[in-house]
Amino acid sequence: MSEAAATPQRLAAEALGSALLLAAVVGSGIMGERLAAGNVGIALLANTAATGAMLFVLITIFAPISGAHFNPVVSAVAASQRYITWTLCAAYVAAQLIGAVIGVAAAHAMFEMPIAQISLRARFGAAQLFSEFVATFGLITTIMATIRYAPTRVAAAVASYIMAAYWFTASTSFANPAVTVARSLSDTFAGIRPIDAPAFILAQFGGAIVAMLLSSWLHARPR
Amino acid sequence: MSEAAATPQRLAAEALGSALLLAAVVGSGIMGERLAAGNVGIALLANTAATGAMLFVLITIFAPISGAHFNPVVSAVAASQRYITWTLCAAYVAAQLIGAVIGVAAAHAMFEMPIAQISLRARFGAAQLFSEFVATFGLITTIMATIRYAPTRVAAAVASYIMAAYWFTASTSFANPAVTVARSLSDTFAGIRPIDAPAFILAQFGGAIVAMLLSSWLHARPR
Amino acid sequence: MSEAAATPQRLAAEALGSALLLAAVVGSGIMGERLAAGNVGIALLANTAATGAMLFVLITIFAPISGAHFNPVVSAVAASQRYITWTLCAAYVAAQLIGAVIGVAAAHAMFEMPIAQISLRARFGAAQLFSEFVATFGLITTIMATIRYAPTRVAAAVASYIMAAYWFTASTSFANPAVTVARSLSDTFAGIRPIDAPAFILAQFGGAIVAMLLSSWLHARPR
Amino acid sequence: MSEAAATPQRLAAEALGSALLLAAVVGSGIMGERLAAGNVGIALLANTAATGAMLFVLITIFAPISGAHFNPVVSAVAASQRYITWTLCAAYVAAQLIGAVIGVAAAHAMFEMPIAQISLRARFGAAQLFSEFVATFGLITTIMATIRYAPTRVAAAVASYIMAAYWFTASTSFANPAVTVARSLSDTFAGIRPIDAPAFILAQFGGAIVAMLLSSWLHARPR
Repeated sequence: MSEAAATPQRLAAEALGSALLLAAVVGSGIMGERLAAGNVGIALLANTAATGAMLFVLITIFAPISGAHFNPVVSAVAASQRYITWTLCAAYVAAQLIGAVIGVAAAHAMFEMPIAQISLRARFGAAQLFSEFVATFGLITTIMATIRYAPTRVAAAVASYIMAAYWFTASTSFANPAVTVARSLSDTFAGIRPIDAPAFILAQFGGAIVAMLLSSWLHARPR
Repeated sequence: MSEAAATPQRLAAEALGSALLLAAVVGSGIMGERLAAGNVGIALLANTAATGAMLFVLITIFAPISGAHFNPVVSAVAASQRYITWTLCAAYVAAQLIGAVIGVAAAHAMFEMPIAQISLRARFGAAQLFSEFVATFGLITTIMATIRYAPTRVAAAVASYIMAAYWFTASTSFANPAVTVARSLSDTFAGIRPIDAPAFILAQFGGAIVAMLLSSWLHARPR
Repeated sequence: MSEAAATPQRLAAEALGSALLLAAVVGSGIMGERLAAGNVGIALLANTAATGAMLFVLITIFAPISGAHFNPVVSAVAASQRYITWTLCAAYVAAQLIGAVIGVAAAHAMFEMPIAQISLRARFGAAQLFSEFVATFGLITTIMATIRYAPTRVAAAVASYIMAAYWFTASTSFANPAVTVARSLSDTFAGIRPIDAPAFILAQFGGAIVAMLLSSWLHARPR
Repeated sequence: MSEAAATPQRLAAEALGSALLLAAVVGSGIMGERLAAGNVGIALLANTAATGAMLFVLITIFAPISGAHFNPVVSAVAASQRYITWTLCAAYVAAQLIGAVIGVAAAHAMFEMPIAQISLRARFGAAQLFSEFVATFGLITTIMATIRYAPTRVAAAVASYIMAAYWFTASTSFANPAVTVARSLSDTFAGIRPIDAPAFILAQFGGAIVAMLLSSWLHARPR
């Protein structure tokens, strides 16, 4: 998943990638809502296109440095599969969180909004949590299969998956604890109340664990 | 079309892929209709983008395991071309149907709707059936040509084809009996009345047979 | 541009590809207009996506058989560059015209409209003709460069170019005499009055000739 | 970044590419605004799709000749990294400016508007300038990484980046001094007042310098 970059560069890549990802997610949400004249469908189409395009770019350019996780769930899976150590995993998660929060702040600054915000947007209930479970299950299934069978297509596949998941899950597919925390700090289109974040994160880890177990069996080959 | 995965993994890949495909088709249809503020064009654009992106992902990640059919018509063509045995074909079709129905149920659960539904959406008449004939003809033509000439682009070509067919056929291109059966169990944007399903499926097989015959001639080379 | 397929297969590929291209262009225009609730921008977005996706598919699957021209201007350029003979060029053009007209008829049938129609949609004047000149100039420039430098990307580049040209030219970029003739036989979103077609076709050949001359100079290398 | 094309061909490629890029940006802005029935979100979606598709095409077809900069900031980075001489850089910038202005004029002609215009659209203030800083920082970061790690994906990555940046920056991401100057000559959707252009250009160079320094460190490898 990554070449021989030194640790500081790896952490910088995770932080910078997470920052640009969140800037894209939150910024395009703001822009979409401002321009869509009340049609939320158009706003989410724009949000989807911007997020997917940015993910394709960020995975393409940072995978050779850090593996381009930008997601604590992905880093935990990578550690449990021994791609990275658990120590590096912890550092990755810290870098992702710091980067993600900076990215949200940058989006607010670009759109002349208060830098520090707390989301008031409620997202809770069994259907939302099942959505996050499914969304993260699909994401980890996609990553584990493409790394094994189609390593040159990880960027395109992950970006495409998230674009689909924005529309087919009721939660618009956060599927990422760092994204969830950072979006709780934005009272905009993409926000989520801080009180709703922990359950989202639990559901995300649940989906990831099931995906990891299933993928291990699915990719086993008869000897 | 597939590597040396064992049969249980192959069937699981067909079932899981069909489930995620139907979750994407039905889920994005529900989300699209909810957000589009009555503009069906926006709902179908979202439905198209989500379906195409998901198909690209699913074919990319499951083709190395099962061939990524997710479609009884495709499995029948594969059997008649001796890619798989007719026995395996029958098992594939069962896995596809089970997976597709589970995917529809998952979409309903994510959007807090009754799990079990029956569609009331009428889709019948000569124009609809001719649409399904054309849609499936184009799908099988695309698959048989890309497997022969551009095997690394099957996922991108099939996803692109279905995205186009959502818009240029009057039926929005089901082109898949498992999808047709599963969508009859969803009274949402993507639904079809059960009574209308058999004729759709017949038209789909008709289009596939013509495509298979034409492709065999088209790809023959002078000796 | 093409492998060793026999002439009947080549002509069938040109006819079938042109038919599917026109079915996509005209069919998605009808569907777009029906669903867009009066917002022509949404209709053209759908028309653009369907046309681009279909072009990517058709060039991918038919290029190994016939070169995937689907366009008399492209066949004329190919003949003048000695990729094909002028005799084969004439047969290609006939196949393209027949296929294109059949594709329009198929679109009408799928949408329960009269099969044979005459367009009443006026498209004329200097700005429209300059648009067609620019559109075809860009198309031939794209094809000649990708065939030379990036032959595996002809399909993606041509599809992307036409998607852009639908929006940046005032004529929505016909850029193809067979498409122009066939669209004159559809009184729908994508139509053009027969009386306006000849000037469009002349402008298309003008743009192609300038592109061919410029490309020849641009790609020359110092000895 | 470029093969052994002679200087006149290189300059022609930069001018022609810049002209087609600006024709796409300005032309699709005009078309989008005309068709979107007052919904600016739809207009920007169309503008985004056309610009991204055109960038993918232009970088694919002109990179082998000139490197496909179309952007004085990119040429300056290329010169400072010794891909091209500073003399050639100056000639590139002149070609880009001339081409970009011609492209805007061509768009106006295609849409029957006065050829020569001055934009009245105000774009100023700290948030706009910070947006241009971020937009260009991300663009140069993308280019420097893809040239090093994924040279076959420069076109797809740059096009995707700009599509995202249209939505996540408040300025819709000019990120290009030649584009900025040319768009000041169009009183349409894509325009910018001439008086606002110099600060945009300064912010663009600021973002590029920071990206260049950071990328050099990020891509350094331990010996």
